[in-house]
Amino acid sequence: MILRDKPSWRELAFAVRGSIITAVGPKVIALMIYAGFMVWLHDQITGFPDIDGVAFTVFGIALSLFLGFRNNAAYDRWWESRKLWGGLLADVRSFAREAELFLPEPVDRERVIRLMLAFMHLHRVHLRQVVDDPRARELGAEFLTAPHPPCAVLDRINALLAQARQAGRLDGFGAKALAERLGSITLQQAGAERIVKTPLPYVYSLLIYRTTYLYCLLLPLALVTPAGWLTPFFVGIVGYVFLGLAEVTEELSHPFGTTPNGLPLDAICRAAEISLAVHLGDPVPEPLRAKDFYLS
Amino acid sequence: MILRDKPSWRELAFAVRGSIITAVGPKVIALMIYAGFMVWLHDQITGFPDIDGVAFTVFGIALSLFLGFRNNAAYDRWWESRKLWGGLLADVRSFAREAELFLPEPVDRERVIRLMLAFMHLHRVHLRQVVDDPRARELGAEFLTAPHPPCAVLDRINALLAQARQAGRLDGFGAKALAERLGSITLQQAGAERIVKTPLPYVYSLLIYRTTYLYCLLLPLALVTPAGWLTPFFVGIVGYVFLGLAEVTEELSHPFGTTPNGLPLDAICRAAEISLAVHLGDPVPEPLRAKDFYLS
Amino acid sequence: MILRDKPSWRELAFAVRGSIITAVGPKVIALMIYAGFMVWLHDQITGFPDIDGVAFTVFGIALSLFLGFRNNAAYDRWWESRKLWGGLLADVRSFAREAELFLPEPVDRERVIRLMLAFMHLHRVHLRQVVDDPRARELGAEFLTAPHPPCAVLDRINALLAQARQAGRLDGFGAKALAERLGSITLQQAGAERIVKTPLPYVYSLLIYRTTYLYCLLLPLALVTPAGWLTPFFVGIVGYVFLGLAEVTEELSHPFGTTPNGLPLDAICRAAEISLAVHLGDPVPEPLRAKDFYLS
Amino acid sequence: MILRDKPSWRELAFAVRGSIITAVGPKVIALMIYAGFMVWLHDQITGFPDIDGVAFTVFGIALSLFLGFRNNAAYDRWWESRKLWGGLLADVRSFAREAELFLPEPVDRERVIRLMLAFMHLHRVHLRQVVDDPRARELGAEFLTAPHPPCAVLDRINALLAQARQAGRLDGFGAKALAERLGSITLQQAGAERIVKTPLPYVYSLLIYRTTYLYCLLLPLALVTPAGWLTPFFVGIVGYVFLGLAEVTEELSHPFGTTPNGLPLDAICRAAEISLAVHLGDPVPEPLRAKDFYLS
Amino acid sequence: MILRDKPSWRELAFAVRGSIITAVGPKVIALMIYAGFMVWLHDQITGFPDIDGVAFTVFGIALSLFLGFRNNAAYDRWWESRKLWGGLLADVRSFAREAELFLPEPVDRERVIRLMLAFMHLHRVHLRQVVDDPRARELGAEFLTAPHPPCAVLDRINALLAQARQAGRLDGFGAKALAERLGSITLQQAGAERIVKTPLPYVYSLLIYRTTYLYCLLLPLALVTPAGWLTPFFVGIVGYVFLGLAEVTEELSHPFGTTPNGLPLDAICRAAEISLAVHLGDPVPEPLRAKDFYLS
Repeated sequence: MILRDKPSWRELAFAVRGSIITAVGPKVIALMIYAGFMVWLHDQITGFPDIDGVAFTVFGIALSLFLGFRNNAAYDRWWESRKLWGGLLADVRSFAREAELFLPEPVDRERVIRLMLAFMHLHRVHLRQVVDDPRARELGAEFLTAPHPPCAVLDRINALLAQARQAGRLDGFGAKALAERLGSITLQQAGAERIVKTPLPYVYSLLIYRTTYLYCLLLPLALVTPAGWLTPFFVGIVGYVFLGLAEVTEELSHPFGTTPNGLPLDAICRAAEISLAVHLGDPVPEPLRAKDFYLS
Repeated sequence: MILRDKPSWRELAFAVRGSIITAVGPKVIALMIYAGFMVWLHDQITGFPDIDGVAFTVFGIALSLFLGFRNNAAYDRWWESRKLWGGLLADVRSFAREAELFLPEPVDRERVIRLMLAFMHLHRVHLRQVVDDPRARELGAEFLTAPHPPCAVLDRINALLAQARQAGRLDGFGAKALAERLGSITLQQAGAERIVKTPLPYVYSLLIYRTTYLYCLLLPLALVTPAGWLTPFFVGIVGYVFLGLAEVTEELSHPFGTTPNGLPLDAICRAAEISLAVHLGDPVPEPLRAKDFYLS
Repeated sequence: MILRDKPSWRELAFAVRGSIITAVGPKVIALMIYAGFMVWLHDQITGFPDIDGVAFTVFGIALSLFLGFRNNAAYDRWWESRKLWGGLLADVRSFAREAELFLPEPVDRERVIRLMLAFMHLHRVHLRQVVDDPRARELGAEFLTAPHPPCAVLDRINALLAQARQAGRLDGFGAKALAERLGSITLQQAGAERIVKTPLPYVYSLLIYRTTYLYCLLLPLALVTPAGWLTPFFVGIVGYVFLGLAEVTEELSHPFGTTPNGLPLDAICRAAEISLAVHLGDPVPEPLRAKDFYLS
Repeated sequence: MILRDKPSWRELAFAVRGSIITAVGPKVIALMIYAGFMVWLHDQITGFPDIDGVAFTVFGIALSLFLGFRNNAAYDRWWESRKLWGGLLADVRSFAREAELFLPEPVDRERVIRLMLAFMHLHRVHLRQVVDDPRARELGAEFLTAPHPPCAVLDRINALLAQARQAGRLDGFGAKALAERLGSITLQQAGAERIVKTPLPYVYSLLIYRTTYLYCLLLPLALVTPAGWLTPFFVGIVGYVFLGLAEVTEELSHPFGTTPNGLPLDAICRAAEISLAVHLGDPVPEPLRAKDFYLS
Repeated sequence: MILRDKPSWRELAFAVRGSIITAVGPKVIALMIYAGFMVWLHDQITGFPDIDGVAFTVFGIALSLFLGFRNNAAYDRWWESRKLWGGLLADVRSFAREAELFLPEPVDRERVIRLMLAFMHLHRVHLRQVVDDPRARELGAEFLTAPHPPCAVLDRINALLAQARQAGRLDGFGAKALAERLGSITLQQAGAERIVKTPLPYVYSLLIYRTTYLYCLLLPLALVTPAGWLTPFFVGIVGYVFLGLAEVTEELSHPFGTTPNGLPLDAICRAAEISLAVHLGDPVPEPLRAKDFYLS
């Protein structure tokens, strides 16, 4: 995730890092060249087709509504993902506290809390499909080959609780409390997996990208008469705005990627480590900081 | 559900699988032929009616708002359905864990977990109205003739719990925890049934389809003067966008169908099987993969 | 509720059942006659006022936003109501299961489950203000004269539970579980009553209906010059769309009525009877089916 | 709250009660006079400035979006407030039932239920900042001088429960159940206080009112050429729509006021009295009815 | 937070406090000077580029949709933050009540309630990144150097509860109830930290600010022909509306700042002190009042 303050005048004009210019730049330039060619053609050929501005307005409004919908849907996915991970952080903190309250044996406590830390990292690795993550290997090597690593850790924690319960080291209240907490963690985990596994319907992508390109390709025909040689310039602006928005929504709708707009899962996992270190008596690590405005 | 990455240039131009072209193609072509006929008529008849562009703009805006509303409502149904099944998966995992924690007898445990698996398949079959599903028959043959099969399985699980409770094999905390979990599963099940049984109000479909067709049929009258023989082309684009959106929303508003945008219930049931296999000591099946980009 | 599939070509053109034509037809025809009169006047009188199209566009956009807002608000009321009744169905099923789990005496069980059935019907009758309903009378005759019949049934169930608790036939866990369930049912009931008792603010109805009529009455002045004798036709379409939407939202915002878009409370009550019949050992009734596409 | 049915033709034309005409009438008339003066000036002065319609359309769209946002935000506040009070009513009913279930001593029961009634009235009085309310004084005179009366009643109820718990007249299950209920009531109470204490950001009011007036003051310059002496009439309509909406949203965003759109807190408190009367053995009061369409 | 009533006529015209004029004033004036220069250039140079109004309308609509989205997202962040702090206030009140109900020893009770007060202030200081706050130092000096002060207080409360539990001064019901309350507080705390740590995606800021400025810089080219020397005036209005909205959303999206639209965290902490004073037997402080319309 890019972490920058409100853009200053200079950034507005020149910032590239965190901008979508690198992604849409070539396409916008191609559109401008095409528009220039259309203006040239228009000057050469008499009877060059000319589109009525008003009819085009309706097309523009429909396209705005499409992009607006997709933008809302993508942002909602991104923000829901962030909420799920925020809720997970809260649940992990509460889990450690409840372990302290309800598990009288320090050994039981330490084991389940350490496993919970492994869960966070394995969940992150699972969502991002990282092939080999040092921290995940360090904390949960034994689970990496399980069919579903994050589930396997939670199953293990549960098995330890069941063991403690049968050995009388966990009473009914504690079992109920910790089971509820695990249930809540399971829900947040399944929510994040839902977002990863269910992209925005492909048919929308197709419909929206096709409509956007059609719009940009037809725009010169509508502008060539009133705007003349300014046409490529306007097509460039409209292309930047519409293709840019399409690109942004594409990124935001995959919130667990490592793109500039991906969520900072590493930083959240580190925050969990900081919170749990106290309960484990471990040294407290430093919070992760953004590098070159990017927080991973 | 169609699972494809962000469309590439080539897919944008040619992709048919997952597109709505097959559904709206014939109608769009019919509209274009009609538009061509109108242009021809316009050239033949003097005094051919001519619609003012501005008045038409308002019609277009109203239609955009209608389609926008329907699109939001349909997408919300689709996404809520996905949330319900995601929640169900989480609940089933938690149910298995809580069974392990609170049911000390392995026999009790296995029976209820296996029944929960049957529930998932029967619920899926019930929502999709599949007549004969091998996996559902295999796991829950005895429930297939019940008035409401998924409810019947949950009733059976509940009866087993009541039995265990009275025999002293399940304490109060466990009964409370498992009853809460069943309650949550019941809620997600009723939510999915609500979506299946309550389509979007029919009056909207009628109002929106009628308005969309009226718009497309009148559009040539507004375009014929400014656009001439380009009219069929523009009518084709507008028809593709508006009828396409109407078609997409029709599909999304029935999220449990087996259309290209239907939810992958088979895959979610398989995910549940994978998660529960560990608790049952069964061999872990493979996750379901998309075939030809389609995940059932 | 009207239950029909996606409208076919023929239905699109001719369907009347479930359409709003019966409600807005006369008004639309009146508008068209008025528009024709305006065109005639325009031809007679020189200096007939003529409205600029662009200024009118803004009016149309504002009106679209108004109607869009009202449409969203009305649909939300309708869908929230459906959710509340779906949740109620789930709660009633869970209540029966929890009664089986926590109430060891079959007599207690049967009494509270049968009362819960009476609750469903009395709640329905209360929301719809049905004066005399045979099924409600059959199941809950004694409560019909209470100040608030559905509350009275829930109070009775609660009193029975309190009695069982004091007689030692219901332990603390069961009392807690069943009290939570009753609390959830109470919340859903109060939610439905809130929707019935609090219509959309009257001031909106007034503002929106007045604006819609003003728009339709002024529209001929804007169209008469560009559209001539096609004006009545366009006014008819716009009137159909805008008055139609106003009518639809009026119906949807009263979701418990017995209008074509009212919720099928009878069918949901029947679904509850089917689910509870098993627990009561009663014969299972048939699910209610739509008659002439209408499910009551 | 104004309670009226769908407006009839006659009401549409003439209804004043519940309309916003009284609030915006003078301003609209002032605007019309000003517009008339502009038309007169335009006829006198050559070179009178003339605004282009298209540029003005964008202004109108922006303004519509602003007002649309404010309208949504205000309506959401109003509806959330209604939900909070509906939830409160449900909670109060459940509280009485749980008191019956878990508090075996009738004396304890009666005391806490009667205090809960006092809470409803004190909460209402607190939200509306009523200086002296007879019913609140009658039920909760001793709390009126507390720093925060509704909180003080809940504290008292809690103290009574703590007392009963220590005296062994309330077991752990009951204490847990009633504490959860009080927690839920506390949440709904804090929600209502949040809405009262946090108005919509002032900066919006300023921005929106300023923009609306600017729009209305500039509108004659855009209309004077195309519309001539019809200008005051159109300015009147636009002023009615936009100022009316601004006024409506102002009222709705303060849902606990006693304006025509304020919520009927008196009626909800009465509904609570009706529900609790049974548990207290008191005579059941009549539900409050609307007077002259107004329910307080 | 600025607390003012509905703006009066005079405030509408002249209010500066709470307005965004101070923030956008210089930019608007710069835009107006630039627009004047363009008009002058247009008069000097023949063949000065001239933009078609209709093409520009689409740009304006797209921009309105962008700003509308950003406005909604920012307002949602602001309102969600307010909800989280409202929920926190409710939770703190409930925590104190539950402590009274479940912790029989007054010493335990006082310690945890006093720590909860420290939590509120440390949480506030943490969110606002205040370096040295007298009240936070007074109540929770020992936690100020912890890696995460608010978490450290909650850990301490939890440790005290664990101690009381093991010493038999807190039973299972109480441990469960207080652990649930702490879990809810942890969730609200993590929610607020999520909002602080995750700003709106930077790419939106860039895209929206760049588009807004481009729009304002190109606007004179579209207006110069129809509006002439009125152009700077219109550019000023449009700049005020669009830049003003961009500025407002910037402020609202950082709800924990001390800007005029920041949330009144000091006042909410004071409200918590008032509510808890009764439980601690402390003198009740005065509620915080707005100074010069500003509540901190």
